[in-house]
Amino acid sequence: MEKGQLLYEGKAKRLYTTDKEDILFVEYKDSATAFNGEKKAEIAGKGTLNNRITSLLFEKLKAAGIDSHFVEQLSDHEQLVKKVDIIPIEVVVRQVAAGSLAKRLGLEEGVELARPIVEFYFKDDELGDPLITEEHIEILNIASQEEVLALYEKGLQVNEVLSQFFKEIGVILVDFKLEFGRDNKGNVLLADEISPDTCRLWDEKTKQKLDKDVFRRDLGQLTDAYEIILSRLGGITQ
Amino acid sequence: MEKGQLLYEGKAKRLYTTDKEDILFVEYKDSATAFNGEKKAEIAGKGTLNNRITSLLFEKLKAAGIDSHFVEQLSDHEQLVKKVDIIPIEVVVRQVAAGSLAKRLGLEEGVELARPIVEFYFKDDELGDPLITEEHIEILNIASQEEVLALYEKGLQVNEVLSQFFKEIGVILVDFKLEFGRDNKGNVLLADEISPDTCRLWDEKTKQKLDKDVFRRDLGQLTDAYEIILSRLGGITQ
Repeated sequence: MEKGQLLYEGKAKRLYTTDKEDILFVEYKDSATAFNGEKKAEIAGKGTLNNRITSLLFEKLKAAGIDSHFVEQLSDHEQLVKKVDIIPIEVVVRQVAAGSLAKRLGLEEGVELARPIVEFYFKDDELGDPLITEEHIEILNIASQEEVLALYEKGLQVNEVLSQFFKEIGVILVDFKLEFGRDNKGNVLLADEISPDTCRLWDEKTKQKLDKDVFRRDLGQLTDAYEIILSRLGGITQ
Repeated sequence: MEKGQLLYEGKAKRLYTTDKEDILFVEYKDSATAFNGEKKAEIAGKGTLNNRITSLLFEKLKAAGIDSHFVEQLSDHEQLVKKVDIIPIEVVVRQVAAGSLAKRLGLEEGVELARPIVEFYFKDDELGDPLITEEHIEILNIASQEEVLALYEKGLQVNEVLSQFFKEIGVILVDFKLEFGRDNKGNVLLADEISPDTCRLWDEKTKQKLDKDVFRRDLGQLTDAYEIILSRLGGITQ
């Protein structure tokens, strides 16, 4: 499969066309960003780690019956995915209070929630990705009510599979962000990535942060944390 | 009815006990605040205007079959209300994009929404009254699911009655904030006030702002705007 034209460059990935119309080429970058792009760094090896972790997790989800845009990992920092139109809604699932939820509701970080919850954020950098309700989604006309229900249910399904899976390797899945897209038949398909960039992952025993909070809060070398995750997931680290 | 002990002093009102256990005495203050208390002023006559407007609107709602805590207006700046435990949720109903909604979703102020929407905000000054979802309410355990449904439905009912009522006097009801409380039987009862402090009201023809935005945005004399509202409502202005 040949890498074609650059279609889109995001904060963490580049998307290219391929010779197949419905397949795209994804290149994971070494860039780290936080606080809506206010904090930035280049971290050698980060792209490779996220590509490997995402590929592994999408394969695990597929084995559990949850489809995604993922087709195959091509190289250290590249993968093939199905082409989708990204729905501009970030679907956040939480089981433990942390980050913006702890701040918004005045909860102590680490408090377990009575049940998993799903939040929607409007994917819009200029607006700072604000929290939105289902009625806001209706007003913005960015997804149908059926699609919103699908986002909600798929979010909880992914949470169930991934949190069990992380539990088996001694990691608490605190919260995570998913993105979805519409495929060429209009089906809602899990897309983007699932990595320590998009999940909060804490060591079950020590509560050590093994995710992008290491970068956000200057807690050490980000790639050390990501390598722990990849290694426990059974992937090859360098 | 005698004014008893001061129970609570808020930004705009003081609450006192009376000789009846389930009745409170409300005193409307002349204080104006905005931006979570960052902007403050004393504006002579404001308390009287809000007391009169609120009394009139609660009476209008009662006539339309919507009960509230309102018992009677006692004097220029005083009224009697039923005692309720305030539910710490601000219920905001919107028909036109303005204020924080316009900012959050990147909508132009004045755009009519496809349908009225209801938002919930956590009434907590320290947290800056953040937008919350129904799942946040569940986690915070501040209202039952039944109560949330009641807040939602009552919000829309009040909107229907008030927007028709304001329309008749040439005023657009852009959005408004309601508060509710539990009475001694646990029923959810409309409470607090309904005034140009808690509603966005625009003249239908000129789009002149006749509400607290006059103070927030330094658009002129606040009491002039509030007097227009009271006068059109058929109340006596000084």
